Amino acid sequence: MRNPDFLLESKTAKSLHEHCKNLPVIDYHCHLSPKEIYEDKEFDNIGEMWLRYDHYKWRLMRICGIPEEKITGNAPWQEKFRAYASALQYAAGNPLYHWSHMELSEYFGIDKTLSENTADEIWNEANRHIAEEHLSPVKLLVRSGVEIVCTTDEPTDPLEWHIKLREKGLPFRVLPTFRTDKILLMKAEGYPAYIKKLSEISGVEISDLDTLKQAIERRLLFFIENNCRFTDLGIQYFPDRIYEDGKSDEIFKTLLSGGFISDEDYLGVLGNLIVFLGGLYKKYNLVMQWHFAVARNVNTKLYSELGADSGLDCVADPIKGRDLIGILDAINNRSGMPDMILYSLNSSNSAQIASIAGAFPNTRLGAAWWFCDHKRGIVEQLQVVSEYGSLGSFPGMVTDSRSFLSYVRHDYFRRILCSYVASLTEKNEYDINLAYRLVEKICYYNIKQLI
Amino acid sequence: MRNPDFLLESKTAKSLHEHCKNLPVIDYHCHLSPKEIYEDKEFDNIGEMWLRYDHYKWRLMRICGIPEEKITGNAPWQEKFRAYASALQYAAGNPLYHWSHMELSEYFGIDKTLSENTADEIWNEANRHIAEEHLSPVKLLVRSGVEIVCTTDEPTDPLEWHIKLREKGLPFRVLPTFRTDKILLMKAEGYPAYIKKLSEISGVEISDLDTLKQAIERRLLFFIENNCRFTDLGIQYFPDRIYEDGKSDEIFKTLLSGGFISDEDYLGVLGNLIVFLGGLYKKYNLVMQWHFAVARNVNTKLYSELGADSGLDCVADPIKGRDLIGILDAINNRSGMPDMILYSLNSSNSAQIASIAGAFPNTRLGAAWWFCDHKRGIVEQLQVVSEYGSLGSFPGMVTDSRSFLSYVRHDYFRRILCSYVASLTEKNEYDINLAYRLVEKICYYNIKQLI
Amino acid sequence: MRNPDFLLESKTAKSLHEHCKNLPVIDYHCHLSPKEIYEDKEFDNIGEMWLRYDHYKWRLMRICGIPEEKITGNAPWQEKFRAYASALQYAAGNPLYHWSHMELSEYFGIDKTLSENTADEIWNEANRHIAEEHLSPVKLLVRSGVEIVCTTDEPTDPLEWHIKLREKGLPFRVLPTFRTDKILLMKAEGYPAYIKKLSEISGVEISDLDTLKQAIERRLLFFIENNCRFTDLGIQYFPDRIYEDGKSDEIFKTLLSGGFISDEDYLGVLGNLIVFLGGLYKKYNLVMQWHFAVARNVNTKLYSELGADSGLDCVADPIKGRDLIGILDAINNRSGMPDMILYSLNSSNSAQIASIAGAFPNTRLGAAWWFCDHKRGIVEQLQVVSEYGSLGSFPGMVTDSRSFLSYVRHDYFRRILCSYVASLTEKNEYDINLAYRLVEKICYYNIKQLI
Repeated sequence: MRNPDFLLESKTAKSLHEHCKNLPVIDYHCHLSPKEIYEDKEFDNIGEMWLRYDHYKWRLMRICGIPEEKITGNAPWQEKFRAYASALQYAAGNPLYHWSHMELSEYFGIDKTLSENTADEIWNEANRHIAEEHLSPVKLLVRSGVEIVCTTDEPTDPLEWHIKLREKGLPFRVLPTFRTDKILLMKAEGYPAYIKKLSEISGVEISDLDTLKQAIERRLLFFIENNCRFTDLGIQYFPDRIYEDGKSDEIFKTLLSGGFISDEDYLGVLGNLIVFLGGLYKKYNLVMQWHFAVARNVNTKLYSELGADSGLDCVADPIKGRDLIGILDAINNRSGMPDMILYSLNSSNSAQIASIAGAFPNTRLGAAWWFCDHKRGIVEQLQVVSEYGSLGSFPGMVTDSRSFLSYVRHDYFRRILCSYVASLTEKNEYDINLAYRLVEKICYYNIKQLI
Repeated sequence: MRNPDFLLESKTAKSLHEHCKNLPVIDYHCHLSPKEIYEDKEFDNIGEMWLRYDHYKWRLMRICGIPEEKITGNAPWQEKFRAYASALQYAAGNPLYHWSHMELSEYFGIDKTLSENTADEIWNEANRHIAEEHLSPVKLLVRSGVEIVCTTDEPTDPLEWHIKLREKGLPFRVLPTFRTDKILLMKAEGYPAYIKKLSEISGVEISDLDTLKQAIERRLLFFIENNCRFTDLGIQYFPDRIYEDGKSDEIFKTLLSGGFISDEDYLGVLGNLIVFLGGLYKKYNLVMQWHFAVARNVNTKLYSELGADSGLDCVADPIKGRDLIGILDAINNRSGMPDMILYSLNSSNSAQIASIAGAFPNTRLGAAWWFCDHKRGIVEQLQVVSEYGSLGSFPGMVTDSRSFLSYVRHDYFRRILCSYVASLTEKNEYDINLAYRLVEKICYYNIKQLI
Repeated sequence: MRNPDFLLESKTAKSLHEHCKNLPVIDYHCHLSPKEIYEDKEFDNIGEMWLRYDHYKWRLMRICGIPEEKITGNAPWQEKFRAYASALQYAAGNPLYHWSHMELSEYFGIDKTLSENTADEIWNEANRHIAEEHLSPVKLLVRSGVEIVCTTDEPTDPLEWHIKLREKGLPFRVLPTFRTDKILLMKAEGYPAYIKKLSEISGVEISDLDTLKQAIERRLLFFIENNCRFTDLGIQYFPDRIYEDGKSDEIFKTLLSGGFISDEDYLGVLGNLIVFLGGLYKKYNLVMQWHFAVARNVNTKLYSELGADSGLDCVADPIKGRDLIGILDAINNRSGMPDMILYSLNSSNSAQIASIAGAFPNTRLGAAWWFCDHKRGIVEQLQVVSEYGSLGSFPGMVTDSRSFLSYVRHDYFRRILCSYVASLTEKNEYDINLAYRLVEKICYYNIKQLI
């Protein structure tokens, strides 16, 4: 960013940032493609880099009334880039405004403000820089100080790119994450076909709940062999009940045979499986991440044209604390708690979730997620963790991104963290002598310890 | 206000305010009486001006334990004024404290603090000022720089005062707003009689859902002939389901014949009608405003004595995001979205609502409404819009008021807006060169464009 | 606290604090033991003082991964104290960090920061201080400027310690509070036995709802004879319906005979009884306190080992505004409202609750409660009260504590209050000349007036 003191609101903040800014980055939850990292192709132009997949940007453009042609349609990249500039220029207070300018500065050496007026100039400069510097995925990751990247992977994934990456020997590690969404979306179209695939790759013929669980464990062991340390859960449903194995087994068999089950029964089996997964992760000492309170593909018209991950998701109603307590208590009772990191897209009940987490071992809130991942959202997450838990136990930042440029967000987070802690020390509410170790822990050591 | 820099927290804020403070006011949602504007009677005394209809003030007085006699009872105006002063003096942080003092300063030339001690002095000064300046509705509106006022009107209203006002030729325009609450409050006492009235004035004999819709369209066309650009919806119910036409028709006929329908069925027909209205407004290119999450007349004892709009309403439970998605998606699928402005009285899920709005075209959050319309509420609304949408698309301020004095609130809003944007530019989080155009858009041009 | 200006963020804040800091303390809701006050034993060591009962501290220690042995187990006090120090040192922004240091400074004369490194040194100093100063309950209360303490008592309590305390003649008063939780937890194990006990002590043979109500009134009269002014209600259930007497009577008799009743029926009878209690408190001009939105003992594994009040509670889902309106309106209709103070553990709907309270007489929000009782929580509570009610009517601070050391929290509150009011006056949003009286009212006179 133009200003080296961006977001560092005091001398103490600068000093704390100086202390932690060069700590390595462990991005323990993202959606980077291991294939793209492996292939490491040079980028072509900033329009494609910014606008090919980034549904955050698509949304902003739609909100500003830009026609779909220039968002996901066939307009040339430069025209899309111009359209994005016209949307961004009045997006004061939006994280995209900050991120885009941090990216321009950090990766393209450009310190101008992006607007309609400067769009073409910046387009040319950025593309010249890409060509001159041969910008590519690995280049960006190395430049960002990345030590570990945890991708998000499907249990049936053969992890071929992870294996190749290991052989390639890069200056950072790329670990797979075991994300069971497809297993849990039992009412999705094509579920029996998916289960067939899972049967094949696991070598376990799935015919009932028990064999499903066996297949899951087999795949998990394969992931563990490939250095998996983190798991994830990110579906739009949250169980309000937990069925026992017998009942769950019956319903699961109905599903497998293509039969209909009610939403209530679905949630009951979902509860059963999540409690099972909690136990499994405890057994193998893996971290369980859970992303909830998301509503997916809500604009059904545009979804039918563009498919998933197109900027048509939104914040769902807050999960019931009662339901979260039910699941956590069940896991704790049956197997003990694995290390658990909770992310809610609806921040209105973050304090409640933090208070619930505080009643169970090893359970904590994660970084402000997605729509909540903006300056005020990050500060409020830090405040909630401080007030209802312990800031010193916070596991730190993740990008949750598909873009290789998103690593500026780790610095964005560190700056905000340092300003927050500094503001406490300056008001005599916290001892500056403890603050250096505190920010280190949050930026790096806490999560390092879980790997 | 005494201090010309009131709420302008920095030099940049002052500069931005200087830039936008003289832009005309478009008050696109209020409850002014077109008859009172037309008749333009001089006011009598500040007690009556302040306390005749203002249920905001009544509530504050009740909260401070003042007996009803001095609130809505028969006490003389001066005594009521004194009582209000005694309540206001310790209402630090309440918007009434700000508004009352801004009004004293702006319209009565009084810069003293109102308290028990100064009440009589201010009573005399203010009333002298009213007499000397011949203060009247039109005088106040002109002085406030009003260009357009959108009143709130019932579909059966013949709009005679709007017609007369047009003929009178004032230096501002008064447009009617099509507010369908009475049509939608289908379980209210006297509904069949209301429908009869609607039949008569529309010339459509309403005997089923289809003829109801025809009658609505006829009245809407009449409103459009009289320059209606905005519509509104403000009932205390929110549909959690949408019945198809056939089922809705049946239930509506039961209602017409005075029969009983369940709350579920009511909500289903309500959903049907709101989706219909969305399509109608899209067809005629009108703006659809929707005010929700309000609980009305909750103190039934006092309500039975005083009737509606007596300060007995409150913030209702937040609407379910799921329900809002259901309605928006249905409108978008069937007719495409009209310009839609959403107002929730419960701000606890504003971020969620903004995120939902961002998934549909032409849909946005409106100004902080009623109980939320205080300094912190305004700032938070601006923040939510910035973070979850685009500040540059914000449609700006409305008074939502019955009082001709409330136009100071447009300046109140502009000051807060300027301080908010200035704080971003001063922290290097937004480019000051874009900020001038940004505040202009929000104060005037964005809404101008919708008229 | 080391710094006399701790939390006083401006000159005006200091001046306001100077004005109110020596006002007596009325702690109208706490859990001190009247027996311990009466016996007034000297304390032994700071470890026991801090860690014997304080489940706030236990939670923080658990969140930091400290084994139960050093929390509630058999480890020596010094080891527990060290463990607590290790947890506290990175708990920036947690109220325990502030309180612990305020207590060290105020009661033990220690101005060092507590951490692993200083734990032993502080252990020694503190214990030396305890011995030298003969620190005891009465000593701490006197030193804290306490005028009145309201304990929390069970209706069957014979109040023997309160009676003895009255005879002892201390420089402060200790009043009992009538807390009916055990009467209302009708589905709890052992309920019939409890009712038998209540029958015996009240002298009313409880055989149905009517005799239950008679017994309650008898006990209340006994409490009133012993200077009871406040009542309380703190169970984890909130009625969503109110059954009439007949139906309630039937269900209550089923309960008495050990029969099963549904959750719905329980809530219906609960509603009946709460409306009855409201009327009873109105009749005897007592203050009704209601603590809601709490989930108790959610970690069932640890609860089965440690029992209640072990740090296993958390914030429950927000109560429905609709339900609160139902109860308040019923009380208001049947008997008129007693003075009512509402406390919600879930602050996400505080604004809504404040707006509901504002529609009923004598009804107001209380101090930020328990998990919400931190700096930001206190400020937000003051803001909500200011914006949705009247700050001048706020009833002020309570400790809600089991610890004699918690009286520093009254000063903590006063400092935050003074900084909040000062920030309004400095921004010209409130008149400094009114501010002195305002803070006095909140610190002392408002609640004094209710006693």
